[in-house]
This record gives sequence, C-alpha cells and structure tokens, in this order.
Amino acid sequence: MFEIKDVDLAGRIGLLHTRSGTIETPAFFPVIDPLRQELPIEEIERAGFKQVITNAYLTLKRFGRRAVEEGIHGVLGFHGIIMTDSGAYQILEYGDIEASQEDVIRFQESIGSDIGVILDIPTGDVGREEARRSVEETLRRAREAASLISGSRTLWVLPVQGGRHLDLVEYSASESGRLEGYSIYGIGSPTVFLERYMYEVVVDIVYTAKRLLPGGRPVHLFGAGHPLIIPYAVALGVDTFDSASYILYARDGRYITDYGVERLDRLEYFPCTCPVCSRYTPGELREMEKQERTKLLALHNLYKIRESIYKTKQYIREGRLWELLEETSMKHHKARDAMTRLTRYAIHLARTDTRSKGIVRGIRLYTQTSLSNPKVLAYKSRATRLYTKIYTRPRYTLILEPHTGDCTKPSENVEVVYYKPFLGVIPWQLCGVYPTVQSHHSGELEKEVIEDLAGEVRSFLSTLGPEKPGEVIMVIDNSIPWSVEVSKLLGELDVKIVRRM
Amino acid sequence: MFEIKDVDLAGRIGLLHTRSGTIETPAFFPVIDPLRQELPIEEIERAGFKQVITNAYLTLKRFGRRAVEEGIHGVLGFHGIIMTDSGAYQILEYGDIEASQEDVIRFQESIGSDIGVILDIPTGDVGREEARRSVEETLRRAREAASLISGSRTLWVLPVQGGRHLDLVEYSASESGRLEGYSIYGIGSPTVFLERYMYEVVVDIVYTAKRLLPGGRPVHLFGAGHPLIIPYAVALGVDTFDSASYILYARDGRYITDYGVERLDRLEYFPCTCPVCSRYTPGELREMEKQERTKLLALHNLYKIRESIYKTKQYIREGRLWELLEETSMKHHKARDAMTRLTRYAIHLARTDTRSKGIVRGIRLYTQTSLSNPKVLAYKSRATRLYTKIYTRPRYTLILEPHTGDCTKPSENVEVVYYKPFLGVIPWQLCGVYPTVQSHHSGELEKEVIEDLAGEVRSFLSTLGPEKPGEVIMVIDNSIPWSVEVSKLLGELDVKIVRRM
Repeated sequence: MFEIKDVDLAGRIGLLHTRSGTIETPAFFPVIDPLRQELPIEEIERAGFKQVITNAYLTLKRFGRRAVEEGIHGVLGFHGIIMTDSGAYQILEYGDIEASQEDVIRFQESIGSDIGVILDIPTGDVGREEARRSVEETLRRAREAASLISGSRTLWVLPVQGGRHLDLVEYSASESGRLEGYSIYGIGSPTVFLERYMYEVVVDIVYTAKRLLPGGRPVHLFGAGHPLIIPYAVALGVDTFDSASYILYARDGRYITDYGVERLDRLEYFPCTCPVCSRYTPGELREMEKQERTKLLALHNLYKIRESIYKTKQYIREGRLWELLEETSMKHHKARDAMTRLTRYAIHLARTDTRSKGIVRGIRLYTQTSLSNPKVLAYKSRATRLYTKIYTRPRYTLILEPHTGDCTKPSENVEVVYYKPFLGVIPWQLCGVYPTVQSHHSGELEKEVIEDLAGEVRSFLSTLGPEKPGEVIMVIDNSIPWSVEVSKLLGELDVKIVRRM
Repeated sequence: MFEIKDVDLAGRIGLLHTRSGTIETPAFFPVIDPLRQELPIEEIERAGFKQVITNAYLTLKRFGRRAVEEGIHGVLGFHGIIMTDSGAYQILEYGDIEASQEDVIRFQESIGSDIGVILDIPTGDVGREEARRSVEETLRRAREAASLISGSRTLWVLPVQGGRHLDLVEYSASESGRLEGYSIYGIGSPTVFLERYMYEVVVDIVYTAKRLLPGGRPVHLFGAGHPLIIPYAVALGVDTFDSASYILYARDGRYITDYGVERLDRLEYFPCTCPVCSRYTPGELREMEKQERTKLLALHNLYKIRESIYKTKQYIREGRLWELLEETSMKHHKARDAMTRLTRYAIHLARTDTRSKGIVRGIRLYTQTSLSNPKVLAYKSRATRLYTKIYTRPRYTLILEPHTGDCTKPSENVEVVYYKPFLGVIPWQLCGVYPTVQSHHSGELEKEVIEDLAGEVRSFLSTLGPEKPGEVIMVIDNSIPWSVEVSKLLGELDVKIVRRM
C-alpha cells in the first residue's frame, strides 16, 4: 500500500497505492468544495495535482443518493485520487447529531472514496481537559470504527489528536499505532497554529506523533497549505497534506509567496513565473472582475504549493533536505523558529537517514544551524568512534590544517588528523571519505562555528589520555582568520602551535 | 535620461529613456547572437524582456552594409531596446586591427543602437601591471571617444576596469566619473569571478566603483546572469545586467535554479513552475532532441533571471532588500560570502537609503547578519543621538522589557527606555515609531544577538555619566531566555535587576 523510494532526514519519497491509482508522496491534496468550486477541477489537474480532498458530510448533505450512484469521482468529474474528510468539523459546527460515525464511514465507502477519514474530534487550541476528551473520544471512535472498515477498499485515516499538549499527542499516537485496519495516520488540526504562524508548535506536535507511529505507514497533516511549513513537515516525516488555503486566500485577494502571504494590493511585481504570473501583472489582476481574479490567484497559489512540494522532493533526492530547511528559515522569522525547534531533534532525524542516495551532493554549510545538519552530526560521531578507538598515545600527533592534506599516515610514530569547520577533527583514515571533501563552507565563520571547532579539537586531545600524550603539533594558517581564532581558543592547552604565514 | 523612482540600500528602481523607448530598471539584457540564435527573439520578448544586447563587431562582420540599411532592429527583428557591445573581446581574441575605435563607435551609431559601448580593454583576472594597462588604455580611449559620441542619440557606456585591484578600480571610476558625454557606466568583466563563484570579489569591485561614480547615472554590470548575484549587485547600485549564461548553460544541458546551476541529468523534479517547468518533467526534456531541449532550457533559464529581477524590485518597493540578501545568503555558501562581505559596507548603504516607501513593511530579523540591516543601524544611531542628548541623570531610570510598554513617560523624575533584540535601547520617545514596533524577530536568538543587546544597554548606561546616575532598574522576564541571558551579561554593572516570573 505504501512503498518508500527514498529517504532524507525523516522525510521520504513514497508511492501510495489507492483503488483509483498511485500517488507519489510528498503530495498535496487541494480541498475541493463540492458545492462551489471557483477554480474548475480540470485546471487543478492541469496544474499537476492528481489528487484532491473533499468533504464527505457536505457531499452527503447536497447530493444524497446521487453521490452514491455516480460515485464521488462522477460528482466531481475527476478521475484522479479522491480523499474525503469525514466533515467532523462541520458536524460539530452545525451540531448535526443525525450523522453517526457508521453513517459517515459507510457513506465515504459507498461513494468510492479512495481515502477516507473517520469521524474524529479535532482538538484545536484548547485547555488540557478538553484536549484529553478529544483524544479519548477520537480513540474510542477509532476502536469502534475498526470493525466497520475492516476489508474496506478505501484507505482509512486515523487522526492523532492532542493539540499542543504533547503528552496527550504521545498517548494518542501510541494508542493509535496499536489499532488494526488503518492505512494512514493523520495529524489533527494544526491549522489553528499554522494560521498564527506558530510553526514551532507544529514541529513539536508532528515530531512527537511521528516518533510513536509505525514508520512504514504514511502520515497526513491536515490543513497545512503554505510553502513555509511544507519542508519542515516533510523533514519530520509527513507524507501528505491538504488545505483550502489556496482558494481562501484567493477570495480574500491574497497571494502566496515563498516568504509569506501577501495582499495583491501591495504587489507591484510578481516574484514568480508560474503560468499566471508570467502572463499578467499585479495591476492587470487588480483590474479584473473578482471572479476571474479569484480564479487566477487560486491557480497561482496552487502553483506555489506545487513548487514547494517539488523542490522538497528534489532536495530529498539530493540528500540536501537540511539545507532546504536552512534556506527556508531565512524567508520568514517564524520559519526560523521552526528551524530552531527542529534543531533540537536533529540527532534523531540523523538516525532515520540511512539510505544511500541516487544523487550524492556536497553539503553546504552556512551558519550555526549547519552544525546540526544530521549529516554533520553523523560524520562527527563516526569520527569520534574511530579516533577514540585508534589513537593510543603515539609519539607525535600532527593536527593539520585542511589544505595541507595528502591523506596519508606519514610514519609509525606519527598520527595525523585534519581539522575542518563544522566537521571538526578528521582522522587521516576518513580523509577523502564523504563528506570530508564534499562539504563546502563559507569563508567567514560565526563565533559559534569557530568555538565548535575548537571544542572538537579539545575533545580529540582529551582522547589522547591524561598522561603525557606524546608531542602534539597543530598547524595554523595565518592567512585564514578562523584558523587563527581556533588557535587562540586552544591557547592554554598542551599543544605546540606552528603558524604558516 | 535616467529617473529614479524608488530606492532601498543603494539599489533603485529607475526609468532609463532611450531612443527606442523606456526600460524600467533593474533590467536584464539577454545576449543575442546575431548569427545563431537558438531561442527565437520573439520568445525572449514574450518571456518579458523588452531589451536585448548583441555584439556590434559580429554584426558588422556578418551583415556589413545591410545592418546599416535595415538598422540593428531590422536585422534582429526586434522593436524593443537594443544595446550593442563593442565586441572588444572578439577584437582582442581575433586580433582584428582593422576595426578602430572610431569605426566601432560610428558603426554602432549607424545601425541605430539604443545603447552602445566604447572599445574598452576588459581587465579580467590578471596581475597588477596588466590591469593598470587595461585601465589606462580604456581611459585613453574613453577620452578619445568623448568627441566622437558628443551629440549622439545612442546612449554610451563607459566601462570601469581594474579587476580585483581595488585601487585601480577606484582610479578608473573616479577618472571615468569626470568624463563628459557618457550616460551609463559599466563595470567591466566580473564574469571571470562570477564563473568561479567568487562573489565577494564582485561585491568589492562593484562597491568600490559605485562609491566614486556619479550617483544619478545608471550602472551596468557586464556578464552577470545568475539569480544568486543579482540581488547583491542591485543592493550595491547596479541598474542593468547582461549575460549569455541562459543559452550557454542550456547548450550544456544546465538548468538555473535559485540556489545554483544544476545539470538537467541530476533533476528528477523541477523546483520551478515557469511555463516550461509547469508543462514538462525533467525526464521529458531529457528525451527531446537537443535543439528543442536547448531552447526550452534557455527559456527556463531566462524565466529564473526574470524572477530574480522582479523579486528584487518587489523587495525594493517594500523596503526589505536587506532581507532578500539574507534569504539569498542561505541558498549557496558562496552567496553567504557575498553577504558577509557586503555587511562590511552596510553602514554606507544605510546612508543612501533616504526615501520614504510607497509600501512600508515590518523588518524581519533573523541572525547576526540582521544586526547589520541598514534599517537597524539607522534606527540605532537615531536612538543613540536622542538619548545622548536627553538623558541627564534622572532620579530613576527604568529599563523595561519589550512587552510592558505603554510608551509613556511616567513622571518628572523617572526616565524610561525599552530594550529589544537587534534594535537595542528604545527611548520612550521613539517607542511606537518605525521600526520599533514593526520589527519582528525569531524567538530564540544567537549569542551574538544577545551580546549585542547587552552591549547596547551598556552603552546606554554609560551615557548616564560616570557620577552616580540615580537608580537604574531593569526588568527582566524570566520566561524569555534571551532576557535572562542579557541580565547575566549585565550582572556586574550598577543596575538593579527586577525579575518577572
């Protein structure tokens, strides 16, 4: 049902097989309104979306038997993959007690939904007690629904709830992971946090849920439709997304950019070359009738989401997803908050990153967030394991600057290591091995990066043991400012520093 | 001839009037090969380029009299603005001593070039002596040409030379600035540095030249055609660009992304939604015949350059060009080098940023490069001037945390200031004034940013004078980590710290 083709951090490219066909993930499901769809579904398909999501409850209300006869694909006139949301939100909103869980499940199945969602209780941003109730009630329903969905051709989504109460998210995820019959896990209602740009909360929720859910099954993030959050969610292991943001923003005259959402009124130039933006100017769009403008804005918004998904996939293929996160973190200060939060989990993300890549790319290292690049962390722990094992008080230890290296061990009594910003200490045995040569850093380094390098040299020295570790000679290049800085930080240690002018 | 409509940093949006019409700058001139143009000029025009550049020498060689009869617009079949390069490079390359400076100038004029270039000697990456000769010879020719071009309807470009020898660039720029008759200054041959991604060298050259050239005239950067360098060059005051990169890359199967140039072979997903990328997949392009593929790649490459120009213009309109530079600095480690180098010049760029904006946007503050955001620097110097003048040892001074502020002076004997990361100290008189409320920073701050804030508080305290400055009370919010860090850094000073839990 779900095949994983490639992995980077906890993100993956996968194939999700449904009764109507296969989707490559990460994938975005545009929300389709069964009653009023300003952007025709054919145009959505032409923009590259082979999958949509619509509301089962509203479809039931509006089309009744016709939906069952024609199927949801017939009603929408769409032959791709259709996910239906249970409409839990609308049921709560309108207090419609008529629709039971069983009704809603049977209905989704009878209209031929490829992916359905049980009647959960979204937590939202509420207090602990209310959140606990939504978790318990969702789990109770999930257990109840398990028998209803058994043998179904629809793939069923079980939403994890708990909102920002992470212990409840943990509980919800671990209980959900035990239930049979569900093909996909959902992460419920981050929308309320996304709307307020509280990306760090979303990072916490997704990380917490993902850690306890079975790794082989896809995870859907409800209500996420902005290029700023997509790379972070994917990096944490989210496979599919849905949102109505593209059309809601459009109705309100708002335009998605990769650095935020902008009012059309405030744009003089389109910072985009999608088929809409390469054809019209902002002024031309402003002068159109509202209906046409809304349609074009919605189409542009979808193209931006598509671009974000495609870019994320390409970076996964290259094994450079961390770099995409760093890049995105400079597009909005709230994205930077997501990055900072995600950095806490970097070491765990490194562990999931085990596959070899089709395309191997160098690592680009920029600022202190690059110190947490899981590829850097993985290298460091490998290097530490190696030198802890092999360096047993040689007569001489040479710590050489990066450019000297011919990567050989000069003689019996001499050990050689190299030092390099971000990576730290490179035993000669690893010199030339990925990523010691394939990492590229900027010329002027932040204080944290220099301190990190000095710290790495210091821990290396400490492995030489407390007794006289033979003579340690470090070569510093006076023409490289960070090299000089490192030697200053190491000044008090028992190292003989040789300066190259 | 050149009207400046808007300014941010040293970058501007302007109108350049030529005999064939007006171009809005910043503008990019795609290089057109008069003999072999794989991407038809109509498609270039349809992609939004109303201006092109071609080689006068090659046009002369190939078309001779026909070019004079039909004019360059007739030969190329293009009715927009045509710039011609003198073809100095080709003349040097083929050692064609037949073409004199006068020939080349008369020829460009006779074919109706809108913008022409004198027969300069591009410096390239050469030693000092050779560089000096190219500067002197270019100046000699520029003086000689001055009489030839006087009264011309073509706008003439005078290229500044000197390569990476900045004293020579200074000399070349200041001498060039004195010559009459030239409408546009060029910055010669950065291509050799751009090709090697030595962006920091280009930043130095452009800054050095710009500082000494008359500010009211446009500046052209030769041979720059990559989205990574465009925002930096514009921020330093470059108005127009030209390059053949779009087609050279395309012939070689290379695809411009906003984070570098990628081989088509290595792409599985297009991280772009331009009319080419939203229609085809990388696989489809690979399977095409070379001619068709080259054409489509070239068109995509032009769309990326267009996007970069448009995005830069939009950020200028919003007064957020510094933020675009920060964003771009995380797309490639070499762009980060450009950023770090440009940061040295930030204080000077702040000075040129005097106009009020059509659209006022908040400032987004991310990392230590944001400390050099010229808007931050300008605010700080304003605040310092203000409090240095007004704070004369009041009985009490309250240093309040950011969230307390009602922005009033409580009483006669009490002075109030606020403290805020990146901005430093905010006298109550400036509280609420742009950008004190309109600056947004990420929640977790780098050490440098916290140290900067502590330093700002310390300099504020020092203005209270060496004698007992009354009682100083600082309020710290224990729930905000950076607030606590600041109080630790200030620990030894004579400040009474009040902690809010």
